[in-house]
Parts: sequence; structure tokens; C-alpha cells
Amino acid sequence: MFPDADYAARLDRARAVMADRGVGALMVSVGADLPYLAGYEAPQLERLTMLVVPAAGDATLVVPRLEAPAVVDRSAFEILAWDETDDPVAIALRLAGSPQVAAIGDHTWARFLLAMQERSPATRFVPATPLTAELRIRKDDQELDLLRRAGHAADRVAARLVSERFGGRTEAQIAGLVREMLVEEGHDVAAFAIVASGPNGASPHHEPGGREIGDGDAVVVDFGGRLGGYYSDTTRNFHVGEPPARYAEAFAVLRAAQDAAVEAVAPGVPAEEIDRIARGIIAAGGFGEFFVHRTGHGIGIEVHEDPYVVEGNGRPLERGNTFSVEPGIYVPGAFGMRIEDIVAVTGDGGERLNRSDRDLSIVE
Amino acid sequence: MFPDADYAARLDRARAVMADRGVGALMVSVGADLPYLAGYEAPQLERLTMLVVPAAGDATLVVPRLEAPAVVDRSAFEILAWDETDDPVAIALRLAGSPQVAAIGDHTWARFLLAMQERSPATRFVPATPLTAELRIRKDDQELDLLRRAGHAADRVAARLVSERFGGRTEAQIAGLVREMLVEEGHDVAAFAIVASGPNGASPHHEPGGREIGDGDAVVVDFGGRLGGYYSDTTRNFHVGEPPARYAEAFAVLRAAQDAAVEAVAPGVPAEEIDRIARGIIAAGGFGEFFVHRTGHGIGIEVHEDPYVVEGNGRPLERGNTFSVEPGIYVPGAFGMRIEDIVAVTGDGGERLNRSDRDLSIVE
Repeated sequence: MFPDADYAARLDRARAVMADRGVGALMVSVGADLPYLAGYEAPQLERLTMLVVPAAGDATLVVPRLEAPAVVDRSAFEILAWDETDDPVAIALRLAGSPQVAAIGDHTWARFLLAMQERSPATRFVPATPLTAELRIRKDDQELDLLRRAGHAADRVAARLVSERFGGRTEAQIAGLVREMLVEEGHDVAAFAIVASGPNGASPHHEPGGREIGDGDAVVVDFGGRLGGYYSDTTRNFHVGEPPARYAEAFAVLRAAQDAAVEAVAPGVPAEEIDRIARGIIAAGGFGEFFVHRTGHGIGIEVHEDPYVVEGNGRPLERGNTFSVEPGIYVPGAFGMRIEDIVAVTGDGGERLNRSDRDLSIVE
Repeated sequence: MFPDADYAARLDRARAVMADRGVGALMVSVGADLPYLAGYEAPQLERLTMLVVPAAGDATLVVPRLEAPAVVDRSAFEILAWDETDDPVAIALRLAGSPQVAAIGDHTWARFLLAMQERSPATRFVPATPLTAELRIRKDDQELDLLRRAGHAADRVAARLVSERFGGRTEAQIAGLVREMLVEEGHDVAAFAIVASGPNGASPHHEPGGREIGDGDAVVVDFGGRLGGYYSDTTRNFHVGEPPARYAEAFAVLRAAQDAAVEAVAPGVPAEEIDRIARGIIAAGGFGEFFVHRTGHGIGIEVHEDPYVVEGNGRPLERGNTFSVEPGIYVPGAFGMRIEDIVAVTGDGGERLNRSDRDLSIVE
């Protein structure tokens, strides 16, 4: 699933940040830090998998013997397979070498963290993300290429949807179709397909259900898949027949807001500024109260990761950041709409990784 | 996904165990405790979802506003939707009411636990599982019914596989077929399908790949799906053409071991005793070194949960326990085999929740 990459270099960069921050060991389990650093994704299992990276010394991937055959040897770390009667927490702590400060992967199960804290009371455990995000937030060329390929595969799905019949089909049926198309267009797996029609569109994370789409319905379709370990995520809007004036008015405001926000992307611009631009235009258009979520989220090995495009995140954008720009307008009981593209920060601006038509598509 | 159940009664039972153990608040997030107690499964998200159950007082489900529409009101707890600029960790801690001891769900992300520990230094956080497992380990009639239905749906897949052609198809193709059949036979979703052929069979958790199955190959097929929130998990064995003597000999030993282990299931028998029986027969048959994993795992809302059928688990089996009995023999470079059924402990013995033919199936 994860490509060949220079994992040894990534581990070296991690060690450099650890040294900077006084972290004696980095310990990552389930979640995205592990594939980033080791090219291996651990299953959510009661059997512990953990990459232990001491500040000075070789990294070791501690892995249940049953899972070890799935680990690709990246020559950047040792592989230590543990047996059913071994104690993997003890093994990981021994490899960490009783550091004063250990950074633990964000998604690590609480039960493993509690076990480590109990057995290693002199170690202070801190979240790993401030450290790993420092690495992961700037995508390299290989990562950008995978995100671009995923984005363009999603765009081909968007283009195909325009000629589909929506009326008379259920949300769940359209969602199934989108999932099939995501794979047909090159994703390894479909990850999600939100299809929210009519008043359901007012719920941004609506679960597609048995509602039959009918004449006059607006339909929000938000979908993505995974390609080489990296995600796509885009949202397009459809309307069965011509939309009423109020919808059209809102859509014009949304379209302007999304365009302006994407146009503003450039190195040095604070992330929250992108949110403010989108929000300002939607508020000026009279729909401010109906934009109920942040403007975007970083994307890469996770669908949601740093940087978050939200008020309060003053971090300046940097070349290699990739995130969604997805303002929306949600009018309870009536309709919803959202336009979403993934944008990469370049040397002097932004590159849209989605290029499919952002206009409203009138469908049957 | 999760059925109507008496969630208020489950919360009351949780409070009773909390009182017994001096736990002031139970806090569960992602993972299986949440659907068990609240009929809602939280997505793996950077936005915190947490059910807070104070020892005395109403339970509250803290949920991101975007996800709130997916929560079914079970009338057993309050629902508190938080907004994008709220601080959900602070909200959860306030609802917990500064207890001396808080039990935190096993799969809760480490970053949330660390944030809670930092802000609530007087509270001692302990794992929730010893507490919630006490409830979840004894399935009620509704849960047994769902597990039985899932098991029988998997059995229908097993029965259909017997007449499939294996030779000339890849492991991945057979796995795809199994996934389709799991849904056709009544599961809400397919969860996993391990297809391990020839020497790949010697890796118990083999990832099905492009290997084309050929004449003389043994094939291990281990599969399961989810039905009403509960899992099936069964393993059957196939052979393209008649097996060689060594394989047949091993299979006879395995078959006897699995039968004897299932026969031994009864209330009061220590879980490890089931493991010892299977292991003893396989060792006596001369294949002891090739049985490299525990005999089984509990199953319910999780594919793997308490009770574990493993040396060291002396807990006596109780009516309502459900777990796999799945001894295997793995000869590196040659073949693997595993027979797996889910068994429920009854008032005086065990009930196999899988009834499909356990014998080796000779296929084309």
C-alpha cells in the first residue's frame, strides 16, 4: 500500500526534531505516523504494534508475530516480532531506554499508554503530533504526486457523475455508485461517499440512506478514496432540474467564497486567514449563520490532519502543505451545499489538486 | 447499525460495577464500549466523541455537532453537541466532575488521555476494560441472537464455497468473492477475508494477493462480517485435488483437537483449559511446534475481545461468553490449516454458532 520512500531519511529528520525538543524516544503505534515513518500501517488490534525510535540509536518495529509477514523490510529499522506469551509493552519500554520524555503517537490506544505510564513512572509521556506533524505537514514531491493522482482520479468520478440520473435513485445507491467509480478510476479503495439530498444536505456529515432523490432536490456529493496510502477528498453539487432562486443565490455566494479562499493560498499566509476570507464573503452575502464548520483540514496519509484551516490557527502556510478548502452553506429544512478542493501550497501560491467543474451540475 | 436495546439498564449495570471498584466516572470514546453502552459508534476522528458516565448522575454523550445527526436518541443519556471552537476535553472533564478515579475507554486516542491527565492532575485514570468487559463478556439473548445470525450467514458462505472452482483463480479473487457472499448472505458489511494458498497458508494472517491457486494447493479461508453490530468469524479448509498423506495426517489431528476443545466448553472451565486441550492433542499428534497462536478470542461488538482462550487466562467460562475455538497447524514453506468456530457458553455446555461442514473440502 505505502510506496518505497526514504524512510531512513524520515527517521533522521524525526531524530533531529526530537533533539530540538528534548524528546528521548518516539513511540508510534496505530495511526498515520507509523506508515509515514516505516511504510507500514498497523491494524487496530489488541496485540501491540509499536515503532520505537530512541533519540540516539536504531529504530525498532515491535510487531506481533502473526502480523510480521505483512511488514515490508524498509532497511531503516529493525523488526522485532513478539510471541503470544511475550509482553510487548515491556519490550517497547526496554527499547525506548527509560527516557525522561517519550512522545507517544496520537492514536495509540489509551490502554497501552496507561500500561506504559504505570511501568515507567519516571518517564513523562507527551503527544507525538507536535513532533511528527512538523515532518508530515510539508509533503515531498512523491507525496504531492500521490495526492495529485488521487485528486485527479476523484475528478474523473466527478465528471462521470454529471451524466448520471439522480432522480428516482436513493442516496445509498448513488453512494454505492460513487464508491465503485472511485476504484475504477484508480484508487486502491473507496474511503467515503456522502450523498445528501434535499433537506438532508443541511447535515454536513449526513449518512446516505434510503431517501429517494426527487425533482427539485439539491444533492451534495462528498467523496474520496485512497491511492498509494494518500487520500482524495472533493465535494460537488448537483440539482435535479433548475434550482430555485434562493438556492442559486446562495450557490453564487459559495462559489465566490471558495474561489477567493483558494486564490489567497500562498506561503506565509496564516491558515486562519483562508478561513476568514471564505467566511467573510459568505457573511457578506447574507448566509453567515449557515456556514457551521471550519473551512478546511490538512490531508495526506490521514483524511484529516494538520494544518487545520480554522480560526485560531495562526500558523503561516508553507510550501508542501496540502489541505481542503471547503466552505458550505446549510439551511436547515431546506438544502445544503459545499464546494471542496484539495489545494497544495507551492513556492508562490497554491495548486488546486482538483480540477473538475466546480459549478452546479443540473441533472435528471 | 446497532439495535434498540435497554441502554439505560446497561448504564445502570456499569454504575454498579463502578461503585464496586471505586470508579467516579467512566469515559468512553472510539471503540466498542461506546456502542455497547449508547448504541452509537464514534468515527476515528480528531474531533472528540465521548460518553461520560458519572458514578452518580446522568450520562452525557459529548459529540461534535457535525456528527450529532447520526446519533440515535436512546433516551438513556443526554446528548451534548459541541461546536468547532468549543473545547471538548474541558466539556468532558466538567461532566465527569473531577473524580478521584476515572476509567477511560481502551481505544481512546492517547492524545485525548494526555490532555485529560494534564488538565485534571488530581484524577487517576485507569483502563475501562476491566470494568466494561465485566458487562460485555456475558452476552444477553439479543446479542446471542445477533451472533447466531451472523454465524449462520457465514455458514451459508462456507457451504457455497465448496462448489466454487479454486484452481486458476488468485487469492485476491476468492477473497473478493467471499466478501460479496458475506453481504449476500445477510451481513451488513464484509469485515475480512483471508485466503492463504499453498505455502502462504503457513502465515495465519496472510494478506490475500496475486498468487494463482493451483493443483495440489491447500487453501485456508478465514472470513467474517458484521450483522447488527456483531461479528461472525469462521475458518474452513479447501484442497485443490486430493491432499498428500502428510497434510491429511495433520488435518485429522487438527480436526480432533478442535472437536475436543469445543466439546470441553462449559461454565466453570478455565479459558486456558480450552487452549490446553487443543494444544495437547496437536502436540501428541506431532505437530505441536506448528501451532503458533492462542486457541481463540472472545467476539461480539469486536472481532477480538474478552475472553481470550490463551495460556495464562484462568478465568472460568460463564454462560453468555462467546469466543472462537480455532487451533491451526502451520508448516513453513509447505501449508497451513485452521478450523474455527464461534462457540457460546450455555447453562451446561457450549453451543457452536457455526454449523457448516468442518471437514476438508476437495475442490477443483
